Amino acid sequence: MRAMPAPSLPRRLLLGPGPSNVHPRVLAAMAQPLLGHLDPAFLVILDRVQASLGELFGVHEGLTLPIPTTGSGGMEACFANLLEPGDPIVVGVAGVFGTRMCDVAQRMGAQVSRVDCQWGSPLQAEELAAKIEEIRPRVVAFVHAETSTGVHQPVEAITRAARGVDALVVLDCVTSLGGLPVHLEDWGVDAAYSGTQKCLSCPPGLSPIHFSPRALERVRARERPVQNWYLDVGLLAGYFGEERVYHHTAPISAIFGLAEALEMIAEEGMPERILRHQEASRSLLDGMTALGFTPLVAADHRLPMLNALEIPDVIRESTGGESGFRRRLLEKHGVEVGGGLGPLAGRIWRVGLMGENARLPSVETLLSVLRQELD
Amino acid sequence: MRAMPAPSLPRRLLLGPGPSNVHPRVLAAMAQPLLGHLDPAFLVILDRVQASLGELFGVHEGLTLPIPTTGSGGMEACFANLLEPGDPIVVGVAGVFGTRMCDVAQRMGAQVSRVDCQWGSPLQAEELAAKIEEIRPRVVAFVHAETSTGVHQPVEAITRAARGVDALVVLDCVTSLGGLPVHLEDWGVDAAYSGTQKCLSCPPGLSPIHFSPRALERVRARERPVQNWYLDVGLLAGYFGEERVYHHTAPISAIFGLAEALEMIAEEGMPERILRHQEASRSLLDGMTALGFTPLVAADHRLPMLNALEIPDVIRESTGGESGFRRRLLEKHGVEVGGGLGPLAGRIWRVGLMGENARLPSVETLLSVLRQELD
Repeated sequence: MRAMPAPSLPRRLLLGPGPSNVHPRVLAAMAQPLLGHLDPAFLVILDRVQASLGELFGVHEGLTLPIPTTGSGGMEACFANLLEPGDPIVVGVAGVFGTRMCDVAQRMGAQVSRVDCQWGSPLQAEELAAKIEEIRPRVVAFVHAETSTGVHQPVEAITRAARGVDALVVLDCVTSLGGLPVHLEDWGVDAAYSGTQKCLSCPPGLSPIHFSPRALERVRARERPVQNWYLDVGLLAGYFGEERVYHHTAPISAIFGLAEALEMIAEEGMPERILRHQEASRSLLDGMTALGFTPLVAADHRLPMLNALEIPDVIRESTGGESGFRRRLLEKHGVEVGGGLGPLAGRIWRVGLMGENARLPSVETLLSVLRQELD
Repeated sequence: MRAMPAPSLPRRLLLGPGPSNVHPRVLAAMAQPLLGHLDPAFLVILDRVQASLGELFGVHEGLTLPIPTTGSGGMEACFANLLEPGDPIVVGVAGVFGTRMCDVAQRMGAQVSRVDCQWGSPLQAEELAAKIEEIRPRVVAFVHAETSTGVHQPVEAITRAARGVDALVVLDCVTSLGGLPVHLEDWGVDAAYSGTQKCLSCPPGLSPIHFSPRALERVRARERPVQNWYLDVGLLAGYFGEERVYHHTAPISAIFGLAEALEMIAEEGMPERILRHQEASRSLLDGMTALGFTPLVAADHRLPMLNALEIPDVIRESTGGESGFRRRLLEKHGVEVGGGLGPLAGRIWRVGLMGENARLPSVETLLSVLRQELD
């Protein structure tokens, strides 16, 4: 190996679909010297992280813990524990992450029935309810905040239909947690997962997950062991429960960072934080509309932290097309925005205003560099 | 959520089975502001990390990448990709991590044949070879550096037997990588995994893995898709190969840290680093023997980075027994050492001298606090 000092890193304003920028307090927390994963001083911190995540998820019981994977690993954890081969599942598909749910469940041998809607619209609860009554699935799964389309999905009409046939509900909260109200217990959601790199404003690499008592009961009643040893909630509970026995080596530094980020959320207060996301989004939409962008999503269903905007022709027709334009924003101005995925590639931008970045100065910076480039 | 400032953290000298202490340069690298996971400036760093890991693994081709899981997730990644339900596998079991291999493979529906040896001894190559010839398995798996017993397992006699029946070889390098010579290509190993929190001296949370061209070929020829979406090497290769398409959001900060740790290894040189581990271990064994500890493992098979030592009666009989004694070391002196696992619990200590901690001052600190406590 040849020694070769690291290049100095450019500064970026991260206004894509995540990661978002991380507050210096969180970065400093991650840079603290390590503790062992069974050190009583570390377990105090882990206790507090688990309790705070439970509050963010809106739950008072069950098991809440951060697993060392990204959000997609959290998705896999929910399905791996709650599904057995042959189990029927109904998945609401409103974008890339609903599609991914189908892929993940199918690989586990589940019988997947999907209910699609147009990308950019929410799922139709009545359609899902009809499919749920027809299939009587073991699990119903959908996405709360679809990062690929910027749609805010209403939850309760679907969970009611699922409860009607005693199905468990899995909810993807990757982009919503820490930026939108999340009330799993009130809504009747049994398992959920998130990621740290969106509205929690931590680096990627941890997935907070929650299993309700009802979900844990269903895991205990499985006929076959969970296929994924690493994600088996029964084994994870050994470390993340009262016993604190070794399962894997917890990612100490990432948890130091998450603890500090959760402390900052507590200092700010969730109602204020939610409002901040809404206000930032409103300013962004005003400014972007004036520049010729059109919101993809109807006003009632827009996510504040992920703004899907159809791009004007002037950008599509600029040198290098829309991806060339985004690359100039990044390399010349240090501002990252996200492109579209799947059928929306080349058609929309996804502008994230997540956690630390859901503030007017971020919006103003983006609008200002766009004005320069479009001038 | 109630705001509650973080407690100030105690300083620890981490001489257990990992995590080990992390150099301030690595901690500082992790605390750099984030980049996006598709930012060209980040991909330059990721390229270098993948190339350096390949050099550490001793490979020139195939796919080498850091996945966002701990080492056990790396184990699962190797098995999930290389095994299909019903496939026969022969596992050499010399401790906890060989046992875990059996559990992981069994959950995937593989037909597991295990060859055991006494904990504290290496696997007998002839016994494994006989079992391999009898079973003609698809995969042969064993541990290079068994963290639960401190045994250094010779590799080549077993890989020769596996090659004789065209089986793929999976090697656990969690504790060996960065502290012992690893030459996967020369040895004929097809897939391997490690963890960052041992001799690489990074925080836990990443698992460097390698798949040889032969292993990748076998994955492509699978009849059924990999059960684990998150660990599917075909999907991972989309992001970690030349295309760099989104699969999961790479754990940016952890990779900044790993890049700096690999740079420090390059500056030091692997031969010097290996020697440093051996010298530190020699001093430790001299000092501990003088205090009444007895090495568990015969001289030829000892790991330098994980020293398994039978504890003297005076510690077993002290207030709180051996775990009380270790707790005093931790809380009074800030020194962490590991206890035994499974049948070795209460009988041995596991003293890690890994990466940054494989130095005489670490050894002297431990010996000095032991002398104080035993006085």
